[in-house]
Amino acid sequence: MTADYRSLIARTPAEFKSLNGIDVLTGHEVMSVDPAEKSIRVRDAASGREYDDRYDRLLFSTGASAFVPPFEGARLEGVFTVRHLADGLRIKEYLTGLSSRRAVVVGSGPIGLEMCEALRSVGLDVTLVELADRVMPTISADLSRIVQSKLESEGVRCVLGQSVTAIDGSGGLVRSVSTPTGPLEADLVLLGIGVKPVTELAARAGVEMGAGGAIKVDPRMRTNVEDVFAAGDCATTVNTVTGAETWLPLGSTARKQGRVAGENIAGGSVDFPGVQGTAIVKCFDMTVGRTGLDEKEARAAGFDPVVTGIEAEPLHKYYPSAGPLHLQVTADRATGRALGAQVAGPLGSAADKRLDIMAVAVGSRMTVDEMQYMDLAYAPPYSTAIDSPIVIANIASGRIHGTECSCDGAGLDL
Amino acid sequence: MTADYRSLIARTPAEFKSLNGIDVLTGHEVMSVDPAEKSIRVRDAASGREYDDRYDRLLFSTGASAFVPPFEGARLEGVFTVRHLADGLRIKEYLTGLSSRRAVVVGSGPIGLEMCEALRSVGLDVTLVELADRVMPTISADLSRIVQSKLESEGVRCVLGQSVTAIDGSGGLVRSVSTPTGPLEADLVLLGIGVKPVTELAARAGVEMGAGGAIKVDPRMRTNVEDVFAAGDCATTVNTVTGAETWLPLGSTARKQGRVAGENIAGGSVDFPGVQGTAIVKCFDMTVGRTGLDEKEARAAGFDPVVTGIEAEPLHKYYPSAGPLHLQVTADRATGRALGAQVAGPLGSAADKRLDIMAVAVGSRMTVDEMQYMDLAYAPPYSTAIDSPIVIANIASGRIHGTECSCDGAGLDL
Repeated sequence: MTADYRSLIARTPAEFKSLNGIDVLTGHEVMSVDPAEKSIRVRDAASGREYDDRYDRLLFSTGASAFVPPFEGARLEGVFTVRHLADGLRIKEYLTGLSSRRAVVVGSGPIGLEMCEALRSVGLDVTLVELADRVMPTISADLSRIVQSKLESEGVRCVLGQSVTAIDGSGGLVRSVSTPTGPLEADLVLLGIGVKPVTELAARAGVEMGAGGAIKVDPRMRTNVEDVFAAGDCATTVNTVTGAETWLPLGSTARKQGRVAGENIAGGSVDFPGVQGTAIVKCFDMTVGRTGLDEKEARAAGFDPVVTGIEAEPLHKYYPSAGPLHLQVTADRATGRALGAQVAGPLGSAADKRLDIMAVAVGSRMTVDEMQYMDLAYAPPYSTAIDSPIVIANIASGRIHGTECSCDGAGLDL
Repeated sequence: MTADYRSLIARTPAEFKSLNGIDVLTGHEVMSVDPAEKSIRVRDAASGREYDDRYDRLLFSTGASAFVPPFEGARLEGVFTVRHLADGLRIKEYLTGLSSRRAVVVGSGPIGLEMCEALRSVGLDVTLVELADRVMPTISADLSRIVQSKLESEGVRCVLGQSVTAIDGSGGLVRSVSTPTGPLEADLVLLGIGVKPVTELAARAGVEMGAGGAIKVDPRMRTNVEDVFAAGDCATTVNTVTGAETWLPLGSTARKQGRVAGENIAGGSVDFPGVQGTAIVKCFDMTVGRTGLDEKEARAAGFDPVVTGIEAEPLHKYYPSAGPLHLQVTADRATGRALGAQVAGPLGSAADKRLDIMAVAVGSRMTVDEMQYMDLAYAPPYSTAIDSPIVIANIASGRIHGTECSCDGAGLDL
């Protein structure tokens, strides 16, 4: 897909300098931060030299690191996480020398699913191990089944409801992973079991932690320590649907938080309102994603959730179409408020942007009644006259008001 | 594209009966409506028989008809409008017998642009005549230029700022159209100069007309006459951005109004809130569309419009991308409220759904400040980390607050 890994670098140190006048020091580690003195201790890795520097304002953008289970075997050759560009290059290099080609992917979140696709695309046998009884447990059971079918049709063996209890090898090289029901042979093990915020330096500087063990920030991205900010995967945020503090490390959120932090560090006064948990993953030729609360989260937050699901064709029957598109909406019975949505569908079904349409509706606190009248762009090359996010609002509204109508059923060309 | 015209029929009379228990009488014309007696006079076209029938509640869904200028030559063979399925079939039949193949399309609205594509695709020379000094004058001048370039690159000759003053022919067949600067030879003339609501029957029944000469309805889709409703292209609606009564006949609106009318006719009490003027058209491999108010409309409605435009790539530079995508947002300087948006981009750029994202933002009265934090679904196959509707909100917000930042400029991989 991507010819040269260098094209993956969003901005080089030289571009930071020329575009923004920002000095970027690579190969330099901050060893400690002294907020009382507003000073930092820096180590230049190349020369080994240590020196002190000062700041007016300081930003922790230390990110997150891949979680590695405390198994001795996790350090064997052939065991990988995917977090940095270098991880991908190491996997690629390892694969070139590999004769037998059995991969075990541990964890069926976005990284796990993306790696199933990547490893299948270079011809490996892939077994996916997931602790939950279904793949991608962050989406609803209905959509989870659709994703599992997709994985299996692409030759991925799904081992569900199984924990990995050890990683075993010989001669320094990985050979298998252990599960309660027996070992799974593996020439390559990919760990996709989550990330944790990188906060050790901040903690030593007296910075307070919050949800998920991330650096606790206010909407201005300020920590509890004066003139010390944090943003991105190392920082907390607020779930705008529930109002609760949360930690949800995602690239789009990091960019937004960074922008807000930057503006405030430079003397501005901008608030980051938070996130609603929108996430998406490409799994082979399928898109699967979610925004807002699912049924369980809605109930936990004190709502009385009504879940509506439909299977729709994205275009009229006379147009070449890429369905079926699966949509789900969770609404609050008492107020009709749309709390969350989920999608699964082929790449060509615009499931991603239909999720975005519903994400904006959820974010602006629309009710499903109001969602019925969203003025979406209709012409036959783009949607049916009543596009699926409106159809599902029609049904959800009818369900809440007790006026559900058979006209809104699946199978009609709307 | 579409193999069989029969697949274009959304629902047959038999399906209406079997799915919904609705009797559909085709080939029957209602000659008059008597609201005092709640009776209608019907003529069966096949037998010529006239008879009376009664109603409890009556709906005018008489639609709109293509506007035909009052030229004698408008009735010549080879002069067409495109409104009904039969129009398309007639054009197709006419083309099969045509030796010389020069088409003149009059009007560069959605119908005109779609017909330019259709006629070019069957090999005709196409000249597009537009009264305004640019194509598709309902979009901004910047986007209009992009559409014109697309048309010209596809071999459509654009004659702008010219009215058609006559249609001329010989032997009953069209030969040319007249313009102030001379005739344009034509073996086929396609009139795409708009539609008018079909209201004559309603007017004779004492029904009041409103904006655009359409049947005036309230949010319940009721006319001024008791138990008489109207919906679809024959009925007025409200512009939700300005609050003004308007007439904006579109298929998606017609479906929504029909649903509301149906529910109210059956005893419900549902309000149709109106439309914000979202419209879209496919012009060859380009998508062009708009929602809400443009600069001129915003000013006329009493706002102080700030217009922001960007050219963006829909995906990161390392991903096969289908840009450039052109976006425009009109916001109110005093409040920051997003009043409208426009897009133009290649089919693969998801310009349509990015327009929808902005349409939901406009519809829910978000400010451009708020639009900056829309939690849209990000993964590299779908968008940049900060998707273009957010980038444009960043710039618009900075422009309004006087904090515009060079970081938000075009050319960066966001």
